[in-house]
Amino acid sequence: MTADHDPGETRLQRGQRALAAIDGEAGQKVIESLAGIAPDFATYLFEFPFGDIYSRPGLSLRDREIATIAALAALGTAQPQLKVHVAAGLNVGLSEDEITEILMQMAVYAGFPAALNGLFAAKEAFAARAGGGAG
Amino acid sequence: MTADHDPGETRLQRGQRALAAIDGEAGQKVIESLAGIAPDFATYLFEFPFGDIYSRPGLSLRDREIATIAALAALGTAQPQLKVHVAAGLNVGLSEDEITEILMQMAVYAGFPAALNGLFAAKEAFAARAGGGAG
Amino acid sequence: MTADHDPGETRLQRGQRALAAIDGEAGQKVIESLAGIAPDFATYLFEFPFGDIYSRPGLSLRDREIATIAALAALGTAQPQLKVHVAAGLNVGLSEDEITEILMQMAVYAGFPAALNGLFAAKEAFAARAGGGAG
Amino acid sequence: MTADHDPGETRLQRGQRALAAIDGEAGQKVIESLAGIAPDFATYLFEFPFGDIYSRPGLSLRDREIATIAALAALGTAQPQLKVHVAAGLNVGLSEDEITEILMQMAVYAGFPAALNGLFAAKEAFAARAGGGAG
Amino acid sequence: MTADHDPGETRLQRGQRALAAIDGEAGQKVIESLAGIAPDFATYLFEFPFGDIYSRPGLSLRDREIATIAALAALGTAQPQLKVHVAAGLNVGLSEDEITEILMQMAVYAGFPAALNGLFAAKEAFAARAGGGAG
Amino acid sequence: MTADHDPGETRLQRGQRALAAIDGEAGQKVIESLAGIAPDFATYLFEFPFGDIYSRPGLSLRDREIATIAALAALGTAQPQLKVHVAAGLNVGLSEDEITEILMQMAVYAGFPAALNGLFAAKEAFAARAGGGAG
Repeated sequence: MTADHDPGETRLQRGQRALAAIDGEAGQKVIESLAGIAPDFATYLFEFPFGDIYSRPGLSLRDREIATIAALAALGTAQPQLKVHVAAGLNVGLSEDEITEILMQMAVYAGFPAALNGLFAAKEAFAARAGGGAG
Repeated sequence: MTADHDPGETRLQRGQRALAAIDGEAGQKVIESLAGIAPDFATYLFEFPFGDIYSRPGLSLRDREIATIAALAALGTAQPQLKVHVAAGLNVGLSEDEITEILMQMAVYAGFPAALNGLFAAKEAFAARAGGGAG
Repeated sequence: MTADHDPGETRLQRGQRALAAIDGEAGQKVIESLAGIAPDFATYLFEFPFGDIYSRPGLSLRDREIATIAALAALGTAQPQLKVHVAAGLNVGLSEDEITEILMQMAVYAGFPAALNGLFAAKEAFAARAGGGAG
Repeated sequence: MTADHDPGETRLQRGQRALAAIDGEAGQKVIESLAGIAPDFATYLFEFPFGDIYSRPGLSLRDREIATIAALAALGTAQPQLKVHVAAGLNVGLSEDEITEILMQMAVYAGFPAALNGLFAAKEAFAARAGGGAG
Repeated sequence: MTADHDPGETRLQRGQRALAAIDGEAGQKVIESLAGIAPDFATYLFEFPFGDIYSRPGLSLRDREIATIAALAALGTAQPQLKVHVAAGLNVGLSEDEITEILMQMAVYAGFPAALNGLFAAKEAFAARAGGGAG
Repeated sequence: MTADHDPGETRLQRGQRALAAIDGEAGQKVIESLAGIAPDFATYLFEFPFGDIYSRPGLSLRDREIATIAALAALGTAQPQLKVHVAAGLNVGLSEDEITEILMQMAVYAGFPAALNGLFAAKEAFAARAGGGAG
């Protein structure tokens, strides 16, 4: 599964479509929270990460989310974004168990606290999704 | 492709087998370089990352290397290990183009310098492998 | 605008004067919160960062706050201090729009999550100041 | 004081014993919080950090906690774990004043915000312990 | 001094013009070194950081380089890029003394080693420029 | 062993004495390398880290070096400073085996690459010292 290009789309439109497909509502909330402080940054967020990078054909969205979840957990400075991408990973085909494997593996590369904090973020994201699904 | 468990193996043996399958010669060199300073650490390196984590069945080795390459490039503090895992990624089924995609994506999560330094490390690892193949 | 040196002042006095001028009340709260755990550290905080570094004549306080806001947002591990320095930046002549530009630029050097988290911290600091001004 | 090896113990048993001796209740809570998301990770946490590393005879537990407190404060991405290890440090022989010295020193190597955030985490851990002791 | 927008330019053209104005030859070398590994990334590097961010009117190029130099020195993982931006800072109006002040200030926010390594990188960049000017 | 205070000394003199006692020649080389770029920073380096922090009585120099070695290895961005402090650790009473234990333990808190790179830095510092002793 990759995001395909529609030649008639602008980068902004392609990014908006990709963000909706990958992050769903959580991505939309990030965009809205930027309205009062930096609306141009919302445009860049659509255009570069989603319109350019995630829309490239050379790697599936599932593989891209493995990379993103691993990187955010290793950095340890982006827990809100990690939760968004745990949900995104589930949206594009990763299972909860696979995401748990990725986060456990981060103990090797970024230490046990990074893995633990990543697992706790995932636990919240899994629960939020289960809760939302019951609504 | 996952590393399967042989119930008769110790963690050390399983880790040695996994490291050889994944990292090949580069992994062996790391182990050797530890001999003069911390031989016990070589044992731990076989046992925990490779005997425990990489040998778990829940995620393919190809997916595990996506996670590792992303994490090491995002951290930016482990260029020697990143080169080893770029080679490992190729060993377990990632293409050079897929690794390039992973590293480009790190611009979004860790900044353009992290992506650039990751791409330059990959360039060296790709060249070393091509050079080795010619020998 | 730079903090000028009064030859009759100690480093502590100069630092106290500089901290009050730059960080205002927020700086004072940090100092007070140290009283119960490490009062000597409050002294060092007055003396080295404020009495020594911020009091040097070679760079304006406005330029120093650009550097500090950028560094804290890039590191991503110091959100409380980032909020204090967003307020400090406004105190020494940066506009809200200029601070927003600095934080957006951090997407390039430390990734989009670092920029987003910096922008959200600034949003809080801008609102706290507006709220305080209304009192 | 070091954790001695009992040849009849498994790594898991030795790790459980070491974790209880070092982290006390706080360690137990971390293990329990993993139950619903990654129970295997709780096993690894007992086995490698505590069964392998902290049980090695070459460095006292007091010295090991100096290293851990310093590293976690410098990284700045593991405040929950830092609080656990401040309590652990007190358990294995460090005084509150010594822990405060370690954290103040981190201003030199990781900056004043890292030291401040470490000191505030320690303040909470000291208070929690004092509160618990009164119960 | 800010990079002004020419409405007839593409983002790529605007970015190429901005990169040439800011980074000069050093920027061009980075672009060339990407040719053999990730030519699309060179396009993104022109377009987003330089065509989008550095071309925005809300902050001068001098102020933008203060932010970039501070961030790269604080992160400590991007010495090649720090040297490029020290040269860029000189190109857009910062003096060697001002750059030295910015880097010294990083001792407060990222520790003395980060400041030292930043100062040594600047020393090389200052010398390279002086040497180039003699040619 | 702690650095004692002589009330007749300035902070600079006390720092110079402490740096010489702790880091020996390696510290002196750092100071000299600053002469051409930021001589004031050499003064600050004597005064704050060594004149203020390392000269405090509440923690032995041996314990302070455990903290510094752990922090620098965990950060992974200060290999030159880590080598200096491995040598400093030996100067103030740590054994090579104890330093190796500290660095191995960093695998738990900052990942295996951080521990490996720390061990390789220590190997060089141990060898340089042994080589110097033969001269």
